[in-house]
Amino acid sequence: MPTLVLIRHGQSAWNLENRFTGWWDVNLTEQGIAEAKAAGELMAAKGLDFDMAFTSLQTRAIKTLNLALEAMGRLWLPVEKDWRLNERHYGGLTGLNKAETAAKHGDAQVKIWRRSFDVPPPPLEAGSEWDLSQDRRYAGIAIPQTESLKDTIARVLPYWDARIAPALTSGQRVVISAHGNSLRALVKHLSNIPDSEITELEIPTGQPIVYELADDLSAKDRYYLSER
Amino acid sequence: MPTLVLIRHGQSAWNLENRFTGWWDVNLTEQGIAEAKAAGELMAAKGLDFDMAFTSLQTRAIKTLNLALEAMGRLWLPVEKDWRLNERHYGGLTGLNKAETAAKHGDAQVKIWRRSFDVPPPPLEAGSEWDLSQDRRYAGIAIPQTESLKDTIARVLPYWDARIAPALTSGQRVVISAHGNSLRALVKHLSNIPDSEITELEIPTGQPIVYELADDLSAKDRYYLSER
Repeated sequence: MPTLVLIRHGQSAWNLENRFTGWWDVNLTEQGIAEAKAAGELMAAKGLDFDMAFTSLQTRAIKTLNLALEAMGRLWLPVEKDWRLNERHYGGLTGLNKAETAAKHGDAQVKIWRRSFDVPPPPLEAGSEWDLSQDRRYAGIAIPQTESLKDTIARVLPYWDARIAPALTSGQRVVISAHGNSLRALVKHLSNIPDSEITELEIPTGQPIVYELADDLSAKDRYYLSER
Repeated sequence: MPTLVLIRHGQSAWNLENRFTGWWDVNLTEQGIAEAKAAGELMAAKGLDFDMAFTSLQTRAIKTLNLALEAMGRLWLPVEKDWRLNERHYGGLTGLNKAETAAKHGDAQVKIWRRSFDVPPPPLEAGSEWDLSQDRRYAGIAIPQTESLKDTIARVLPYWDARIAPALTSGQRVVISAHGNSLRALVKHLSNIPDSEITELEIPTGQPIVYELADDLSAKDRYYLSER
C-alpha cells in the first residue's frame, strides 16, 4: 500500500508575528525547530519510514524536513526540492501584519483574500521590498505576482502528477514537507474536497498527516499521526 | 571558470574519541556543528556561490553540508547524495580506538593500515556490531568489507566522472561535502599527487578547499579559503 505523509513546516517567524508570508523566505522559530524534530521523533516511534522526500524551495519547509529526517536517522534519503511546492504567493499582502491589513481594508475584504477560492490578493508591486525577481533560486521561473488558492493548485497538481504520484506508484514511501496552501492543494485533490470547503481546512504546523492510499492513489484514509 | 569547493565534514564524535569510523554513521560534535556553520559563513563572506551540491550517505557529511548551505542562504540548492562519496571503509578496525589498536597490533602495523596506499585493514567480521549489511541505505550496494585508499579511489572517481565532472563542465558551481579519504581521492586526481604521497596529505575538518579549474577541469590552483 503506498505510504504518503504530509507535513506543514513548523512555526515560522512570521507565523508568530501574524504576517502574510507567501514566497518570502522566513526561517523557523525555536518552537518551529522543536515541532520539526518532534514530528520526526513521532514518525520514527510509530514505525513510519520513507524512500523519498519532496519539499519546496523555501527554508522553513526544507529545514523542517531536514530536522524531521535527522530525528528519524534518515538524513541520507533523496530529497527533491521544487518551487511548485512553495506556499501560495500572497502578492501585495506579503509582509503585512494580518490585523493591520484588516484594520486598513476591512475584515470582509481580508477574509475574501484569505478564504476565497479564486480571488487573488492585489499583485505585489514592482520594486517592493518583498520582490523576488532577483532571487536566483527562481531563475527561469515565472514568479507569480499574486495567487489565489486556485492558482496555487494549478501549479501544485502538475508536479504531483509528474514527480510525486509516479514515485508512490513505483512503491516508494513518500514524505512531503511543504506549506499550508500547497498542502491544501494536495489534500483537496486526494480527499475530493469541494472548492467551497477547502479554504476553511486548517493544516496545523509540524503535524504529520498520514494518507493511506489505494494502488490507484485514491485516498482510503487520512489522519493525524498524533491521534493514532 | 568552473568553481569547485571541497569540505571535509566537521569534527565527529569519533574524531574526538580517536576511533576508526569509516562507514559507521557517527554524528557531528558541537564543535563539528560550529565548524560547518563557520565554513558556510566564510564561503558567503568570500562571495562564493554554488548551483549544485554533492555529499555522501553519511550523516556527518550531509549535516555539514546542510549547516554550511543554511549559513549561505542556499538550503534550496539541489543536493545529490551517493555512497561513492562515503569515507574509506576501515574494515575490522571500525569502532576501535587508534591508540588501543596500536598497542595491540604495534605502531608499524597500524601505520601500514592507515598510511599505505593499497593495503586494506583486515575485513570486518560478519555479525560485527559495526556490520552495515542490514542498513537499508545501502540496499543494492555491495558494501565493502574493507578498503585501501586505492579501493576508495576506485569507487570515487567513476562517480566524479559520471556526475560531478559533467555538472562542472556544464557550468554549474559545485560544492562537495565528504570525508578525509573520499576527498583525498579527488585531490589526488585533480592535483596529480603520486600514490606514495597522497596518504600523507591531511585534509582538515570544516575547511573549504577551493579549486580553480580550467575548462578541461585540470587544476590551476588549490587553496584553503581561510588563507585568501
